[in-house]
Amino acid sequence: MEGEGVRRRVAFQGEPGAFSEAAALELLGEGIETVPQTTFDAAFRAVSEGAADALLAPVENSLAGSVVRVYDLLLESGLRIVAEKILRIEHQLIGCPGAKLAELLSVASHPVALAQCERFFRAHPELKRVPAEDTAGSVREVLARGKRSAAAIAGRRAAKRYGGIILAENIHDNAENFTRFVLLVPQAEDSGRWPVPSTNLASFKMSLALRLAHKPGSLLAALEPFARHGVNLLKIESRPIQGRPWEYQFFLDVEGPETQNLQAAIEAARGVTSELRVLGIYAAAQGARR
Amino acid sequence: MEGEGVRRRVAFQGEPGAFSEAAALELLGEGIETVPQTTFDAAFRAVSEGAADALLAPVENSLAGSVVRVYDLLLESGLRIVAEKILRIEHQLIGCPGAKLAELLSVASHPVALAQCERFFRAHPELKRVPAEDTAGSVREVLARGKRSAAAIAGRRAAKRYGGIILAENIHDNAENFTRFVLLVPQAEDSGRWPVPSTNLASFKMSLALRLAHKPGSLLAALEPFARHGVNLLKIESRPIQGRPWEYQFFLDVEGPETQNLQAAIEAARGVTSELRVLGIYAAAQGARR
Repeated sequence: MEGEGVRRRVAFQGEPGAFSEAAALELLGEGIETVPQTTFDAAFRAVSEGAADALLAPVENSLAGSVVRVYDLLLESGLRIVAEKILRIEHQLIGCPGAKLAELLSVASHPVALAQCERFFRAHPELKRVPAEDTAGSVREVLARGKRSAAAIAGRRAAKRYGGIILAENIHDNAENFTRFVLLVPQAEDSGRWPVPSTNLASFKMSLALRLAHKPGSLLAALEPFARHGVNLLKIESRPIQGRPWEYQFFLDVEGPETQNLQAAIEAARGVTSELRVLGIYAAAQGARR
Repeated sequence: MEGEGVRRRVAFQGEPGAFSEAAALELLGEGIETVPQTTFDAAFRAVSEGAADALLAPVENSLAGSVVRVYDLLLESGLRIVAEKILRIEHQLIGCPGAKLAELLSVASHPVALAQCERFFRAHPELKRVPAEDTAGSVREVLARGKRSAAAIAGRRAAKRYGGIILAENIHDNAENFTRFVLLVPQAEDSGRWPVPSTNLASFKMSLALRLAHKPGSLLAALEPFARHGVNLLKIESRPIQGRPWEYQFFLDVEGPETQNLQAAIEAARGVTSELRVLGIYAAAQGARR
């Protein structure tokens, strides 16, 4: 799966040490070059402008739902999905070398991460919560200032990246916190450079975007070919289309034992949808969640 | 629609002045008593423990997608939806009386609100972004400190609530930012106290939760009765069920011209689903989005 001596550059949204970067390195190995970007828009632009070869982006989280902005940008971009990675989100309390939990005064992180560690904060009411714009970025700042009374909440990789130490492990309330990421590459990109399904895999996953007339039965007609060809529906989500109140956008993930079944189902569904786009066909990730 | 002299108490998640409070007051009028709660869990608990008569909760946002946690709590709670309200989310730059935009040094808000005002911050690179845990809470803090160099980003109601002045109007990047809220009341509650569909309304909306076996065709079978009875699908979303990898939870919003059609469709769908719950039947909100 390695290139020919040239390091592949993979863009992600967030600061170095972010969960997205961790997912990219776990999926593709430590040999890649990760390219941090401040926003999802900038991360997609990095690929279209040639500053990165691919993009790893979160598409859904088990607690927070779908990452709507990534779906919108994916549709606009024309990139395609070639792989997925499911990462368990685990929050660590990270401080400066020499710091002790008992001597802490404040803990910084993104408000969503702070909120996911309520039990920890209830057990430590003396700690001041400090909101930050980024989880990994809050670790960077704590280490840069070097004050032993300040800590931050982020993933393990952020601790490693900035030389922090873990003062309390896995302080998140809910162990069932997973994020699903997809690897996106340009349409013209040679698939051989990226992990793609080979014919001996047990099952294939396909992501689709389709548009339907807003009337009774239109979704039914579009789903019928998938059922007929033994293709299982894994995920479905509808979204209104900006400025087109009578048409709806649907995002589907389906799974089939054979790519032929998927192809046959798509061909049949094309006849009953106003637009159908295959966002990618790829191997289903191994993981605790499907 | 007013009660009999007793003020109805409506819980919401957030600080006084939050968008959720604004939505509650716009839907039910200024005569209600709003009950702020720090988390969604606490807001649901306020109703079950009798500290509030109802709850107004966001269920989806046009930019951020569904509020997954509210759906989970709604299923657990046994509350039902009796009305919906669609609110346009507009961000205002709010400062202390006497403050001037040109003399500001910092702007506080929730990171999501900060991120939705990128264009404003690009035009004012001198302003320091200060993350906060809550939009309305950031206005409260700015006014409490009284420093003219500090401002916050939140909705109009937060400015009014804390005595702030608007230094720049509608600074959000995307005008198409809507949040859909639902009014939730206990099952046993007398509907007459809340806005409910009357028989002369043009269209009814119904929210449903159903569970399906994870196999090809199961969703198709569940949707068929709705199409057959002329009931239109407005929204569909699937979610894996914690600890039950072979079963899926679906959330549907449907719309029909007659409640009889909705009832007939539900009865037929019950036969092909492992569980079907009507979350509420209510009048469709008037608004820019459906």
